[in-house]
Amino acid sequence: MKATMMYGAGDVRIEKVPDVRIIERTDALISITRACICGSDLWPYQKMEHNDAGRSMGHELIGVVEAVGADVRKVKIGDLVVAPFAFSDGTCVFCRAGLHTSCLHGGFFGMNDVGGAQAEAVRVPQADGTLVVLPVGKDDQLMPSLLTLSDVMGTGHHAAVSAKVGPGKTAAVVGDGAVGLCGVIAARRLGAEQIIMLGRHPDRIALARKFGATDIVSERGDEAIEHVRKLTHGLGVDSALECVGLEQSTLTALRIVRPGGAVGRVGVPQEASIPAAQPTFYSNVTIAGGPAPVRSYIEDLLPDVLEGKIEPGRVFDQVTNIDGVPDGYRAMDERNAIKVMIKF
Amino acid sequence: MKATMMYGAGDVRIEKVPDVRIIERTDALISITRACICGSDLWPYQKMEHNDAGRSMGHELIGVVEAVGADVRKVKIGDLVVAPFAFSDGTCVFCRAGLHTSCLHGGFFGMNDVGGAQAEAVRVPQADGTLVVLPVGKDDQLMPSLLTLSDVMGTGHHAAVSAKVGPGKTAAVVGDGAVGLCGVIAARRLGAEQIIMLGRHPDRIALARKFGATDIVSERGDEAIEHVRKLTHGLGVDSALECVGLEQSTLTALRIVRPGGAVGRVGVPQEASIPAAQPTFYSNVTIAGGPAPVRSYIEDLLPDVLEGKIEPGRVFDQVTNIDGVPDGYRAMDERNAIKVMIKF
Repeated sequence: MKATMMYGAGDVRIEKVPDVRIIERTDALISITRACICGSDLWPYQKMEHNDAGRSMGHELIGVVEAVGADVRKVKIGDLVVAPFAFSDGTCVFCRAGLHTSCLHGGFFGMNDVGGAQAEAVRVPQADGTLVVLPVGKDDQLMPSLLTLSDVMGTGHHAAVSAKVGPGKTAAVVGDGAVGLCGVIAARRLGAEQIIMLGRHPDRIALARKFGATDIVSERGDEAIEHVRKLTHGLGVDSALECVGLEQSTLTALRIVRPGGAVGRVGVPQEASIPAAQPTFYSNVTIAGGPAPVRSYIEDLLPDVLEGKIEPGRVFDQVTNIDGVPDGYRAMDERNAIKVMIKF
Repeated sequence: MKATMMYGAGDVRIEKVPDVRIIERTDALISITRACICGSDLWPYQKMEHNDAGRSMGHELIGVVEAVGADVRKVKIGDLVVAPFAFSDGTCVFCRAGLHTSCLHGGFFGMNDVGGAQAEAVRVPQADGTLVVLPVGKDDQLMPSLLTLSDVMGTGHHAAVSAKVGPGKTAAVVGDGAVGLCGVIAARRLGAEQIIMLGRHPDRIALARKFGATDIVSERGDEAIEHVRKLTHGLGVDSALECVGLEQSTLTALRIVRPGGAVGRVGVPQEASIPAAQPTFYSNVTIAGGPAPVRSYIEDLLPDVLEGKIEPGRVFDQVTNIDGVPDGYRAMDERNAIKVMIKF
């Protein structure tokens, strides 16, 4: 079968790899129908040192169940399923608390002996806890939006939940990538009254406005902070969604939030530290977030996608096949694409 | 009148200073009946550079209203009142949100032209918003516990609230000072099932047990973390109350909390930064806290003090008069006293 391997920064190849097979009794094998490239895949694309063994890429997928292990009960061959970017048993103390990304028996696609999802097929461990059956056909027009439940929409939602977005509140989204755009959807869905998008790419800003952004701040650094303050009566926002992970974006998020407000971080941190005292401690700013427990959110978000209340699939502005994946990485890295969907 | 001035590390003097007087129409003058020395006063006591002008000390007080400005409506001459360590108008957007320490017209005792409270009298700005009338006589036996509502009990409560302590949860308190001990009271009051005190002083540990600590961890660093894990089935605690402010105590708090848990910070940060990625981001640990909005908490905690349900006044293990304040600083700095009350 074909799969996507990364051997170093900028070096993405489509290769023939051994077909997946059932290893554990709780596994399912999925023939992938839709996958995509994640903003977080761009960190190794920019920085990974060369590695002869390569790294199996991809962690967002929809597909058809082709085989199940002896202990799998909830999904069956032929089901169309969406998988969150982390697999989880659904029964441990952390899964029961809704934090599936910390599952005691969980893990991530493309790590250890579990392959990545930018591939024709994938082995899904903990299939019963991980997979969610979709009540539509595999070529339904909702596929792009359903695919975002695998990561990007759930991650934007996690940023909003972590930042305590709620009815009537003011929110700011730092980062106009696909996660930030889904953060706008989530903030609106949770009732934010004012949603400020910090971004500078015209196509993304246009989409942010369609998703519910009420204000756009295109400056950076101190000027961005000053602009946000002007838009919020000098107070700052209640909720800041950090959807990048760089030092500047994190500091911006911390500095645009008002005293007593909250920063929800979902951008994978590239910086080493957060200031301990100002503006965090002295302003009683809550810092929360991390890898989104997407599995837990699918059940909340799926009905809204099925009913067309939210359309996160609009973040996909390019579609390719498996052979076009290396070009997809390039397009996203050069900001010529917001997010690339892979169709099988 | 007599007041406490600090001129540098270890240099605390009791001096005659000009009597306080009404400056703003919203001021009240308070003749102090009880004050105390705060753990946070020990930071300048250990580190302050010599300063000829000196610094007016103290921010915790109970006293009798001696005079009020023309616009004061809620408190009147003769009232016995408790003041939180920060004054606040009670009407601004942050006060209405319960975050009085960020009041738009607020401030702190011992700063700018407002004197400190380790003194015979003090001018209280924003008297109507700041002061809470006490329904007892000025020598009531509840005075020690009522005085803790000025700061230390409210601060321990803020640590517990920020760390999301709740019924059935496991909590750990890092720091066996007076704030940490009040954190134990708060954690128990909020329903924590297991309360682990990290501390090593026998007298404080004994008091922690009386307040409701179920386990004691006397190690430090990695050994403390390992011990807490052993006590929590390898998971860590739901809630960690950081009641010190040093780098080691903060890292300990971050590392003993389980994935999805929360750290409530109330120790004034002496460290520069918090790790951005591990164990914070990847474990979805919430970091919250800051200067406690004690004014907001007085209304919650006062009934429990009046009914004797909580006895935070037991953290005072020495009583002195104004002239004994320098010795009180020394006793607390040398850990010969947990907390020193000043009686006028």
